[in-house]
Amino acid sequence: MHTFEQLQKKAIEIIEKEAYSKAPVSLYEPVDYAIHQGGKRLRPLLTLLAADLFSADIEQAVKPAIAVEMLHNFTLVHDDIMDASPLRRGKPTIYQKYGTNKAILSGDVMYALSYEYLLECEKEKIPALTKTLTSVLIKVCEGQALDMDFEERTDVKKNEYITMISLKTGILLAGALKMGAIIAGAKGEDMNLLSEFGLYAGIAFQLQDDILDCWSDLSDFGKVVGTDIADNKKTILYLTAMEKADEEDRNTLSRLYFEKTLDLQQKIKDVKAIFEKYNVREDVQTMTKQYMDLALSSLEKISVEEERKENLKIFIDQLLNRKK
Amino acid sequence: MHTFEQLQKKAIEIIEKEAYSKAPVSLYEPVDYAIHQGGKRLRPLLTLLAADLFSADIEQAVKPAIAVEMLHNFTLVHDDIMDASPLRRGKPTIYQKYGTNKAILSGDVMYALSYEYLLECEKEKIPALTKTLTSVLIKVCEGQALDMDFEERTDVKKNEYITMISLKTGILLAGALKMGAIIAGAKGEDMNLLSEFGLYAGIAFQLQDDILDCWSDLSDFGKVVGTDIADNKKTILYLTAMEKADEEDRNTLSRLYFEKTLDLQQKIKDVKAIFEKYNVREDVQTMTKQYMDLALSSLEKISVEEERKENLKIFIDQLLNRKK
Repeated sequence: MHTFEQLQKKAIEIIEKEAYSKAPVSLYEPVDYAIHQGGKRLRPLLTLLAADLFSADIEQAVKPAIAVEMLHNFTLVHDDIMDASPLRRGKPTIYQKYGTNKAILSGDVMYALSYEYLLECEKEKIPALTKTLTSVLIKVCEGQALDMDFEERTDVKKNEYITMISLKTGILLAGALKMGAIIAGAKGEDMNLLSEFGLYAGIAFQLQDDILDCWSDLSDFGKVVGTDIADNKKTILYLTAMEKADEEDRNTLSRLYFEKTLDLQQKIKDVKAIFEKYNVREDVQTMTKQYMDLALSSLEKISVEEERKENLKIFIDQLLNRKK
Repeated sequence: MHTFEQLQKKAIEIIEKEAYSKAPVSLYEPVDYAIHQGGKRLRPLLTLLAADLFSADIEQAVKPAIAVEMLHNFTLVHDDIMDASPLRRGKPTIYQKYGTNKAILSGDVMYALSYEYLLECEKEKIPALTKTLTSVLIKVCEGQALDMDFEERTDVKKNEYITMISLKTGILLAGALKMGAIIAGAKGEDMNLLSEFGLYAGIAFQLQDDILDCWSDLSDFGKVVGTDIADNKKTILYLTAMEKADEEDRNTLSRLYFEKTLDLQQKIKDVKAIFEKYNVREDVQTMTKQYMDLALSSLEKISVEEERKENLKIFIDQLLNRKK
């Protein structure tokens, strides 16, 4: 069994050392840039944690771990085009740096490369790994489609939002863990419980992200505070406020999210004032905690010794207490 | 053994009957539209032809055949964004009809769906099928990257163009055939020969396409004649003319391809006049024939009875004699 720090370090190292210096440069340079743009490498970490949980040789989990990070970064490259996001982790996004066409094409090849990593695994594990990667990407696309649909809708409900973030974020964390469990040859029941753990942790992670986008300290978070409000994103904060606010505040909030010609700083301030008036932050923190508890309860039921589960508890703990 | 017409009919039917009516509609409706936009279904036909060549049950090849057509259509959806093509087969392209964001996302899910079809095959064939699909897509992306690079270069050579179309078109035909051969459990040597056949046929197919874009009868071809010239595409016609023309004509051609404010009809007429002056059409027809012969020579060497090869000869023949 490895320590959390050992696996965290390894998750970062295995990504750092991958290089894409092949020709055509116009295709692979953006891939190299995208994969080395930093980030917490939570998904490959989960694959390694899962393999380690079931006492597998974590070296066997390295390729699937890279595959998962590649898939994740591919979705970011395409999402950034769709969301017209100029920056990610403080650096220009791929489409900003290389143009939309190259971002589309390099994203496509990144998705293919993630399968290529899986194909380096033991032959009899390839069907299950491929199936996991494929169903993850289908769900992530469905989540992204819902997210775009929500932008045009005014009647989004909290449970629909939870469904959307389950698909867009939770499923990928669940898939990352499942890959490690497949490598370890874990039992079906344990694999499902671990996937559930990932799904709930993913929901909690996104709820936490919504909170941090609104209230994090700028320098810690590495991006501008209030971007979700600026972009009129109907996050859980907005949906909770819409549910709790009186008619007047609800109308104000709707108007702030609808008008396009507002002073952005003032708009963020006004929206946050309504959020704070209705204790939205505390409500969402409670929800986050509930999903964390669901995750832990799934972890509880997995049939391995309790001490082996410590690392995944540390993972959850760090997720809940992070500042960025 | 099936007749060519039986397999041709089946290739069309298996695509026609697929329906993508799932939620979210914003994701799957463009998929449904894209896959039912028509086309000759040459790629699924090749998968069925390959399975039949090696006496396999063609029903086993249906899922890989659909996978290949799905992959092909995915690349068209993304290519049409990159090329800003408003029409395909006389109908609006996906990005024109649904917008760029939905075209990106629906393309992504189409790629995932192509793996999903493969995952329905016999378990022990999945690794080889997945590997084929993955390496095909990587090569197609490399080809598309080269194609985009060529737009900005003035020194493209004919052999570079052949490499580009091998990657962008040939590899997918080769892959379609290989899928069928994998399903049939063909020997490695035969599989390679059949892939070679597909690669050469694909090159011939694209050269033929360049000719048809320039000289086809509008109503037969289903698209506007001369679009490659209008778009300044450095096709084999252009590259051949640049190689053969005297200095004056070369300068004229360069200028016609460089200036942006020309009368399009006049430009097409002037470019074609230079092509015709140097017998470019005949040269490219000869090249096409050479690649067809290479394809046939690879087919020759495959270790199955000669009569089983008839259908692939019909395929080549129809490719060479098509008008659209």
